[in-house]
Amino acid sequence: MTMAWQKMKTGSEALVHNTLELDALLAASRALVEVELNSILPPVGAAPEKVHQAIRWSVFAGGKRFRPALLLAVGQAFGAEIKQLIRTACAFEMIHTYSLIHDDLPAMDDDDLRRGRPTCHVRFDEATAILAGDALQTLAFQTIANDDKLDAATRVKLISELTRAAATPDGMVAGQALDMEAEARQVNGTQLEEIHRLKTGALITSAARCGAIIGAADDHELAVVTSYGAQLGLLFQITDDLLDVTASAEQLGKTPGKDVRSRKATYPALYGIEESREKAIKAHRAACTALEQLDRPTEVLHRIVDFILHRTG
Amino acid sequence: MTMAWQKMKTGSEALVHNTLELDALLAASRALVEVELNSILPPVGAAPEKVHQAIRWSVFAGGKRFRPALLLAVGQAFGAEIKQLIRTACAFEMIHTYSLIHDDLPAMDDDDLRRGRPTCHVRFDEATAILAGDALQTLAFQTIANDDKLDAATRVKLISELTRAAATPDGMVAGQALDMEAEARQVNGTQLEEIHRLKTGALITSAARCGAIIGAADDHELAVVTSYGAQLGLLFQITDDLLDVTASAEQLGKTPGKDVRSRKATYPALYGIEESREKAIKAHRAACTALEQLDRPTEVLHRIVDFILHRTG
Repeated sequence: MTMAWQKMKTGSEALVHNTLELDALLAASRALVEVELNSILPPVGAAPEKVHQAIRWSVFAGGKRFRPALLLAVGQAFGAEIKQLIRTACAFEMIHTYSLIHDDLPAMDDDDLRRGRPTCHVRFDEATAILAGDALQTLAFQTIANDDKLDAATRVKLISELTRAAATPDGMVAGQALDMEAEARQVNGTQLEEIHRLKTGALITSAARCGAIIGAADDHELAVVTSYGAQLGLLFQITDDLLDVTASAEQLGKTPGKDVRSRKATYPALYGIEESREKAIKAHRAACTALEQLDRPTEVLHRIVDFILHRTG
Repeated sequence: MTMAWQKMKTGSEALVHNTLELDALLAASRALVEVELNSILPPVGAAPEKVHQAIRWSVFAGGKRFRPALLLAVGQAFGAEIKQLIRTACAFEMIHTYSLIHDDLPAMDDDDLRRGRPTCHVRFDEATAILAGDALQTLAFQTIANDDKLDAATRVKLISELTRAAATPDGMVAGQALDMEAEARQVNGTQLEEIHRLKTGALITSAARCGAIIGAADDHELAVVTSYGAQLGLLFQITDDLLDVTASAEQLGKTPGKDVRSRKATYPALYGIEESREKAIKAHRAACTALEQLDRPTEVLHRIVDFILHRTG
């Protein structure tokens, strides 16, 4: 299995080529999403200015916009137009950003640095960070509710979907709570996978599903996309854990090794680096296998999995 | 004007009678809402247990359920059925409760006691309180999105409405931010009214509007309900401020006089008690005048305004 990883890491020039192409594609979707987010978010000039500044500080912090990119890619694979997808894509980024702002708070993970810059509560203050996160969450649902490019039935379906992925017991908040509980004790592999499935996987899976929903995927297709998204989410979290151990602060934009010091439940901590890499390759393969069941243009979706397996930041 | 207040306070036996009847009505709607909330909220037994316990600790803390009662009353005045109203009513209570949990946090208003019991972060811990509030907000929107007693177009309208009232720049989060800013400086009457309009009024007005929306009110009727809700919200906040000065801890379930000590912007602080009472009476009258424009059974809506003017807790 270690051999397989080495081969994937060094053997494929085509992969480098594909990854570069995907880089361009991600950059394009990032630009689209940022223009739209800029138009959606409350203006800095309006009161309460500090909260609006804090929202923009955290939203425009140079994120990769991975969840929106995934939603756009899946949606396009199902024939949806960008204008039908872009608002929901932004809603996912807003939910993701709200969760980062709150997770960074002193009472939660107590992080001072995110993407190479002071976190929201450090740059502003705790109260402002709590309110900025709260408002971002509300605005995410507002963005979908007010999206006049989609019919009402679709909007309701998307909001229902996103709330399930963001809340408890089946989503992000449940994952963050379990992750914090796990700091105090040793978790086993099943528990670790459950924490990550909820904390990171649920929103990634849901982004893929929402793209498919907007693209009017049938039930079988939606099930396949769910499986693809779940494996991609798992892969994302394993490589995230690996990067925390192996990457430099410059690559990460945050202090590496922090997971180990705060006794976070991670794949390398539980399985070691090599076995974690093997698990990443397995998730990559499972995601690709899922895609083979779709009679749709899935090339970009394949490249996204490759990109996450080989990411360096 | 002080005379008028005295007269309303002492002169009307009919009023006492009406208030008692409304008490029974509020108790009935409270019971309905609590049964429904119990069925909506994640079970305590499921993981993450602490967050689910914290959610229920704060939701079932003996609140008056004023916003749901208002929504139910307005909706019924427009002919809507309880089963069409109850879920949205619960969503308002969930948004209200999330805001209380977060406002009580040490970084915000730092309150230890709420409705006679330890606040969420005191009973559990700060991280759990943040997550419980976050989840409650998400679950509020989920509750409307999944409400199969309403068509999709209505659900979208309600979610859009509730997000505007809860977020920034036109809603609750903006009000809380402005309120915190105001602690450091003297505000004038216009600023005070704006803070309260956003912090408390927006959600109360929106609860009235959502009742009317579910009852398929026409545009004129919705405008009247908006005006009624706005005056009711103002009245609610003035009497809230007055109670903080005049009521006992037992009546309030929290430490009275706290607003003064924390230099909160309040009506009594700016205008004194008598002039604040006059403003309450003026808001009461404006709310009643608005109702006269409706060709609907508005008796209960009148009683609600009376009840808020004369409340003692």
